[in-house]
This record gives sequence, structure tokens and C-alpha cells, in this order.
Amino acid sequence: MLAEFDLIRRYLVPSPARHAADGIALGNGDDAALLVPRAGHQLAVSVDTSVVDVHFPGDAPAFAVGHRALAVALSDLAAMGATSRWCFMALTFDQRHFADDAATQAWMEGFGQGFHGLCERHATTLAGGDVTSGALTVGVTVMGETPQGLSLRRGGANVGDVIAVTGELGGGAGGLALWQKGERSLEHPLLRRYLLPEPRLAAGEALLHLASSAIDISDGLLADLGHLRHASNVGAALDMDALPLASGLEEALGREAALQAALSGGDDYELLVTLAPENVEKARQQLRELGLALTVIGHCREEPGVHGIPVGGRAGWQHFNEGTP
Amino acid sequence: MLAEFDLIRRYLVPSPARHAADGIALGNGDDAALLVPRAGHQLAVSVDTSVVDVHFPGDAPAFAVGHRALAVALSDLAAMGATSRWCFMALTFDQRHFADDAATQAWMEGFGQGFHGLCERHATTLAGGDVTSGALTVGVTVMGETPQGLSLRRGGANVGDVIAVTGELGGGAGGLALWQKGERSLEHPLLRRYLLPEPRLAAGEALLHLASSAIDISDGLLADLGHLRHASNVGAALDMDALPLASGLEEALGREAALQAALSGGDDYELLVTLAPENVEKARQQLRELGLALTVIGHCREEPGVHGIPVGGRAGWQHFNEGTP
Repeated sequence: MLAEFDLIRRYLVPSPARHAADGIALGNGDDAALLVPRAGHQLAVSVDTSVVDVHFPGDAPAFAVGHRALAVALSDLAAMGATSRWCFMALTFDQRHFADDAATQAWMEGFGQGFHGLCERHATTLAGGDVTSGALTVGVTVMGETPQGLSLRRGGANVGDVIAVTGELGGGAGGLALWQKGERSLEHPLLRRYLLPEPRLAAGEALLHLASSAIDISDGLLADLGHLRHASNVGAALDMDALPLASGLEEALGREAALQAALSGGDDYELLVTLAPENVEKARQQLRELGLALTVIGHCREEPGVHGIPVGGRAGWQHFNEGTP
Repeated sequence: MLAEFDLIRRYLVPSPARHAADGIALGNGDDAALLVPRAGHQLAVSVDTSVVDVHFPGDAPAFAVGHRALAVALSDLAAMGATSRWCFMALTFDQRHFADDAATQAWMEGFGQGFHGLCERHATTLAGGDVTSGALTVGVTVMGETPQGLSLRRGGANVGDVIAVTGELGGGAGGLALWQKGERSLEHPLLRRYLLPEPRLAAGEALLHLASSAIDISDGLLADLGHLRHASNVGAALDMDALPLASGLEEALGREAALQAALSGGDDYELLVTLAPENVEKARQQLRELGLALTVIGHCREEPGVHGIPVGGRAGWQHFNEGTP
């Protein structure tokens, strides 16, 4: 059995040399980390817990487990338009699950690579955390900054605003379906969408001055649109034909299941935003520079509920149409 | 089965009315919380995970589970001399563990009362979190503030400094022993010490300008003194007769086991500090005003290791004497 302290030091802690540059006055190794926020900014903080066999398969590659747990947390910061700065990890896992210390170390190494690789790409420093014993659970606290008084929120959408999404939809659910059918190659685009989602932090920052509201798509387009509609007190009309289905999704699942994956599948971690019509072209151009599509899929309207989604095709869809906005 | 959203809204979220006063620009219900740190301060952040049957008994009262999970996290802020401000909770639990929704709600209500009650007493606002399904695990992220450039750390002890502890020692281990023997009354002082520890936040703040180093006693006096000695590169001499044993501990366990509980038991969540001799009386007086004892138990010296602890009595103790500081 390896000691918690050794595991943290070996696989989870970045070099102290980076700390000063990253606004860390004191990192791992004391009772708490000391962080130095930038003046004139608010802190955006979110907590996300990924539980084995609930949020990811028990036999998912360690690299993907580390990457994904951080990605879904960072996605919340992206939805606020925040610049990510620090994260904390609470890793619970059972060493008895592994054949020996070498197997534990191999898992931890892959896990750490997935986690740290994503940290690197988004200038996010792991500033602390703990390791405990139990069923595999990765709790991630992410901390970012937005300029004082400025952030993307769920409640800012106006009647007449355009509804748009970044990237592609349905890939998360499509990848899960493939995983369940036995596909294991992390080179498969849909599997990557499911296991290695990319938080849209740069897009969120670019949209901070352009979008009227935002949310990340974790529960599924219709569910998250529901959260946004409720917070903004608007209805919505969607254009099914405009949904940017993930490449290969229709081929893999067929048209109907692909649509359902895009509408209700979840795990896409794209941004769902509303924009005043005059901001759409500028937003699209800024995201294009990031290599990311922004696709208009509908608009906000006064009448409550969602107009334009298939009714009667799949019973599961209909209830999203009902009730107050 | 109750929905995550309902559980969070009913039991885990304080009223939004408190938010503005608490430096929360945006609380639960969006993708992330927005916090407003005070100018001229650093953030102290710590993450603590409490796992059922590892950190607390599976049949512990819900109130104690909520209280304790937060208390052990706040104890880390106390050890930094930080003023606690915000916390985030990641609650993982299995609704199938309960007979019905009413039982789930009763548990959540007790859990929430334990958690929120401690929040109230330490002016700490629950600013967000999530609820997931799995083995009972409470992940808590606490955030506090210290004046820029000023905090208690493990590495500041000097040769000649006095070693002191707040409150009493051994009560955590003593309470656990009683629990294992079947004692269940939360009125029992030792059981309270184990299940309802009080984080020494006010003491930490009072000692911020007086102590040269600090750590909280979670692993046990000798283990945590070891962390402090290593960070400060000093040795220590302890006076066994000076250890402030928890009231009732000797009666419950006998002298030898009581001493061992105080030295190695852990779970006391008192502060272990070092002070220049000239600061001791002032520190003792300030803590007396908080209703808390400060007891000198030894001093720092150049020679590595710990002098003065029983050798040969209990084999388990000896290894703390060995090796470099």
C-alpha cells in the first residue's frame, strides 16, 4: 500500500517553481493553499464530483478519468465566461482494486497525466487536494476569475435573442453508446467526445461581452435550455434541422437516435448561449478564430415552453414542452 | 427517489438574502458561484473529504456527519490563522440506503442542521456544491482570508520556541473508543470531542500575530508535530506530564491508553503552535478570553527528533523519535 502523502507528492502536485507565477503564495504541503486573486476581479468557483459507474465507466482509461473529471468542472467556469486559474482535487480510490503497487502507480500516472495535461492547456494550477480511501470518486473544485461585475449567467436571455451552441451536439451520448457496445479506441471521435470532452473556456471568455446568457450542456440541450429559460423567464423556438450533430453520429446511431442524443443525451460540455441578433456574426467570427463553430439553433420568444421539437416521435421529449417557461 | 436539485434547494442552500452581505455576487443556481474577496487579502483554501467507515462510522448521527465534515475542513483554515468566509459541499450518498423518501429527508435535515449550524457560528456561507449518488462521502472545500503576506505556517518554528496546544488532547481517540464500545449519547463529552469537534478558528486568528508556526492536530500530536518539525527543521522536547488530557479520558481508558490517545490518537482538531517565549503569556490571555486553554507542552531544540516521550512502553511510539527532524 502506498501512503497518501507519497501519492500526492508523486502524481498530483505540480512543481513549486510554478507557484509564484500562478498566484500561489503557498501550495501543497501546509494546512491550506494561499492564493492571490487579481485585483478588480470576482472569483468564480464550482465543485464537480465524478463517481465511478455513475459519471464514468469503471473500466475507463485512467487518463480519461483524470481528464474528464477536471473537464466537466472547468466547463462550469467556461459557462460563466471566467478565466480558469486554480483547481483542487479530492481523490477517493481503493488501492485494493489494483493487483499491486506497480499497478496503482501506473493508474495514478495515467490519471495524473490526463488531469495535468488539461491543467496545462488551460493555465490552471492544481493548488491542493487530498487522497482518501473508498470507491473511486474524483471531486474537483475549480476557481477562476471574471472582471468585477461581469460574467455570463443563465438569467440574461431576452425575447428576440438568438439561441446558439458551440461545437457539435450528441457526441457525448453517442460515445457512451459506442462504449457500451464495446468500442475502446480513444482515437474514435465519438468516444473522445464522451471520455475526453474539451471545456470551452476560450469560447466563454470570447463570448463574455457578446452573449446575453450562457450555460454549459451537461444534462442535455433541452434540459439545460430549460434551466436557462427558467432563469431568464423566456420561451424558445428551436430548428431541428439546424442542430450541429456530431460527425459520425447519424452513421453510428441512425437519424432519430442521433437527434435524441443531441437533444437529451447530455455530456456534450458545449456552451449554450443567447445573443442579441446583432452580436451573432461577431461572436461567430471570434469563435472561428478559436477553431470552434457557433451554430444558431433557434431564438427566444415570449410564449413559454419550447417550440419546434418533435412531439409524439419519442415520448421522452414531449414533457420539455410543458409547463411554465 | 428525490431529485438532486430538490435536495440541494431544500437542505443545502442558505437564503439568497444573506448573499450580498457575505461577499457572494451570485450563489447556487448558476454554473458557478461568484465571490468577492476582500482587497488586501490572500485566499486560504483547503479541501477535505470525509468517507463513511473511514473517517466516520456509518451509523453516526446525520447531524454529526454534517458538522464533522465541515469542522475538519475549517480546522485547516484555523491552522493558517485565516478568517473563514465560504464553503462548498460535494455530497455523495445513496438514497437506496434509506427506507423511503421520508427517511432520506430526515437524514438530510439532520445533516443540513449540523453543517449549517457550524457555518453560522463561524460566519461561513455555503456558496455551492453538488449532490451525487454513491457511497456516503462528504467533500468540503473551505475558503478563508488572511491579510496579504500574513499567515500561520508549519515552517516558522525556531529553536528555543515554546510548543503549546489549544484545548485538550486525546478526546478524539477516546470518543472513538467509546463509540466502538457502544456509547451513543452525544451528551458524552468524549463522544462530542470525536463526533462534534470545534474548529479553533478564533484561536487561529488570535495567534496570527503571536505564533511562529501552527498546524492542526488531525493525525495525532506526534505525527503533526513531525510535519511541523520537518517544515521548520527543528527538533522538540516534550513534557509528558504537561499534556492536557481530555477530561474523563484517564477514567475511561486508564493512564497509559490516555497518554497514547493524546500522543498518537488524532482527530482532536486542536491547534499545535510554537511561540517565542515572550509571546506565551499574551497568547494564553487572548485564548482565555475565547474560553480556551493554551498549554505549554515542550520546546523546540536543535537536536533532531523528539525528546521526552516514553520509549519501550508502547512500541508504536518509538519510531517518532527516529530519523531526521
